Amino acid sequence: MEFTLERGTELLARTPPTLDALLRRLHTDWVRATEGPETFSPFDVVGHLIDGEETDWMPRAEIILAQGPERRFEPYDRVRHRARNLDRTLDSLLDEFARLRAANLARLASWKLMPGQLDLRGVHPSFGEVTLRQLLSTWVAHDLGHLAQVARVMAKQYRQEVGPWVAFLPILTDHDQPRS
Amino acid sequence: MEFTLERGTELLARTPPTLDALLRRLHTDWVRATEGPETFSPFDVVGHLIDGEETDWMPRAEIILAQGPERRFEPYDRVRHRARNLDRTLDSLLDEFARLRAANLARLASWKLMPGQLDLRGVHPSFGEVTLRQLLSTWVAHDLGHLAQVARVMAKQYRQEVGPWVAFLPILTDHDQPRS
Repeated sequence: MEFTLERGTELLARTPPTLDALLRRLHTDWVRATEGPETFSPFDVVGHLIDGEETDWMPRAEIILAQGPERRFEPYDRVRHRARNLDRTLDSLLDEFARLRAANLARLASWKLMPGQLDLRGVHPSFGEVTLRQLLSTWVAHDLGHLAQVARVMAKQYRQEVGPWVAFLPILTDHDQPRS
Repeated sequence: MEFTLERGTELLARTPPTLDALLRRLHTDWVRATEGPETFSPFDVVGHLIDGEETDWMPRAEIILAQGPERRFEPYDRVRHRARNLDRTLDSLLDEFARLRAANLARLASWKLMPGQLDLRGVHPSFGEVTLRQLLSTWVAHDLGHLAQVARVMAKQYRQEVGPWVAFLPILTDHDQPRS
């Protein structure tokens, strides 16, 4: 499937209400569950998505569009959310994520990007030249990856409780080494 | 985490609004996308979840609770939805799933199960004796597994578009042999 702004932003707009429907007012036993040390809980995922809105996708898109002399992106801090959200509730993070995402999508739309601009390039700190199309496609796939992670982390809490059904529930065993 | 009716049904109630927020009125390119032949699209997943409401979880729970002479469950038909939903729209399936799930949760609550009843047993056609606790835990984990699948199937449509970012998106490569 080819990336287009229309199809891509259609999904980006749905991530906040989807996580809201799944997580708002959910018991803390679910919301703070993890796959083990140093892995994300649903709470951490929402914090990580907020970090993306503030420091990753749009700042990098702006670097690409500016086509200035320095097109290298800032490295992304995957644990920024840990200290940032120590005193926060999940529901307030869900509100904040929805607000930031809506503002970013409104700004993206205001740029009225032409298809040719999707081929403009920036420099990723790890793997070099990347296009705006790749950045925006990754924004979408990244959302979906973390939505799948939230579902997987919560499912795994019943790893013992399902008994022999574990054989029919690959979600419980496919990621024995959690990667997020 | 130990299964309790309160924690388990709290999640079961959220699956319909979560899938609704993610999928309703979404473009057919997303909704009908798959991971390859004989794998489920998001449309198929909603149909499969409806089949579960009609033929799997509650009928099996009733067999267990009845403690009659025949406690063996009917085998579950994983492709019932294919023929059933040929002429349906996704949005009508989302409505139907929400209605069926709400009715099933109301019925489950009406039973006012005592903790001891969760240890009652039925007979699974593949792996023999199982408890009501295992059945109800599996209902929850099964929902979450299919939610993760919907996210994964859609993410994979951008497998090529993300370019080098594929290295940071395990959702795109962890399931090269799709299992659902």
